[in-house]
Amino acid sequence: MTDVSVRQRVLADNEAAAAQVRARFHAQGTLVVNLISSPGAGKTTLLEATIARLAHRLRMGAIEGDIATERDAARLRRLGVPAHQVLTGGACHLDARQIQQALQASPMSGLDVLFIENVGNLICPTAYDLGEDFKVVVLSVTEGDDKPFKYPGIFSRAEVAVISKMDLLPHVNFGFEEVRTQIETLRPGVRILPLSAVRGDGMGEWGELLETRLQAKRAAAAAPAR
Amino acid sequence: MTDVSVRQRVLADNEAAAAQVRARFHAQGTLVVNLISSPGAGKTTLLEATIARLAHRLRMGAIEGDIATERDAARLRRLGVPAHQVLTGGACHLDARQIQQALQASPMSGLDVLFIENVGNLICPTAYDLGEDFKVVVLSVTEGDDKPFKYPGIFSRAEVAVISKMDLLPHVNFGFEEVRTQIETLRPGVRILPLSAVRGDGMGEWGELLETRLQAKRAAAAAPAR
Repeated sequence: MTDVSVRQRVLADNEAAAAQVRARFHAQGTLVVNLISSPGAGKTTLLEATIARLAHRLRMGAIEGDIATERDAARLRRLGVPAHQVLTGGACHLDARQIQQALQASPMSGLDVLFIENVGNLICPTAYDLGEDFKVVVLSVTEGDDKPFKYPGIFSRAEVAVISKMDLLPHVNFGFEEVRTQIETLRPGVRILPLSAVRGDGMGEWGELLETRLQAKRAAAAAPAR
Repeated sequence: MTDVSVRQRVLADNEAAAAQVRARFHAQGTLVVNLISSPGAGKTTLLEATIARLAHRLRMGAIEGDIATERDAARLRRLGVPAHQVLTGGACHLDARQIQQALQASPMSGLDVLFIENVGNLICPTAYDLGEDFKVVVLSVTEGDDKPFKYPGIFSRAEVAVISKMDLLPHVNFGFEEVRTQIETLRPGVRILPLSAVRGDGMGEWGELLETRLQAKRAAAAAPAR
């Protein structure tokens, strides 16, 4: 079997598992968000801030993907939300089968929003559907303003692009409008959210986005099939 | 053929190509450095600063790996050094066969130091020997102080760990000693270099390290075989 056909089979198996995850959370009315970024762009910090602001309104949970360590799940569990850590060993992304296995251990039932925090990597997670409603790419201003065109795969697939660490903007050389142009070129209609999880900028818009998407999902599920 | 045996064959083919690259630069007395980091940790900025400081003492060149865009090679060519861009398409790392192909297009002869700037990724490049003398991992202080234990593969394989963007240390929550402990646990004897390419801190030590390693390589090559 060639490398290409192995990869095609792996992706086909993944699609089947992703469809099962999607059906499960469609039935439960849970919004599923797949967060993708480089290491250290601030995914876990964004989730901590999201939980702190919205835990009184939304029931949230998380599946955390990492090569090694339980640190991220531990950070979220400290805030009182269910969080399950998946250790991928050497693998550079989560796949839908791993999500199914995580759900056997931690069912994540009765949630409004399930966050899946992918392994820190802008490349490998791109092709793997995890059964999410949408992908969010997180790019921090410290990473430089050339990144969307250097990593076009993820920026063309993510419906939402969070530009994180906006509090550090005065200290770095980052052309926000240049980045906006690149992202909108790769994905017309994308929602771009500048945000500082530590200072709070943009957290209101982020919360509204989650609540709007959750309501839309439940409304669509409740509508009579035609 | 199983996924595992495909991967073993790919790695075995890579080892053979890497050995050829290593023999070529052993014969030429060129030091080869494989730079690995997350996207935006500052690899290209480090190379720009290295060229600016050392171009009068060392003949340098670079092979740049990216998913897309020629930006990084263009940045270095502007400084007058030979730089060849390898576009990997979707692939998340360089392999030794791509280095051989790059050398057919750009021979990189007569150099003191050849830098290979890997694709921005802390995971996939780890297992691929490119024929380098040593790997350098670059971790920026904006990425957070939990990263070595989260990405143990690369931190156990890199002989040198550059902690970059030290100028941003006052603005972020980064425990330098915590990071040092993690890195030294994963690789006892590692050389840890705190550095700011934009401000210049640590650039002298980095230059000395390159010159010392180059002299050692040439001395070993010149010594009579026993």
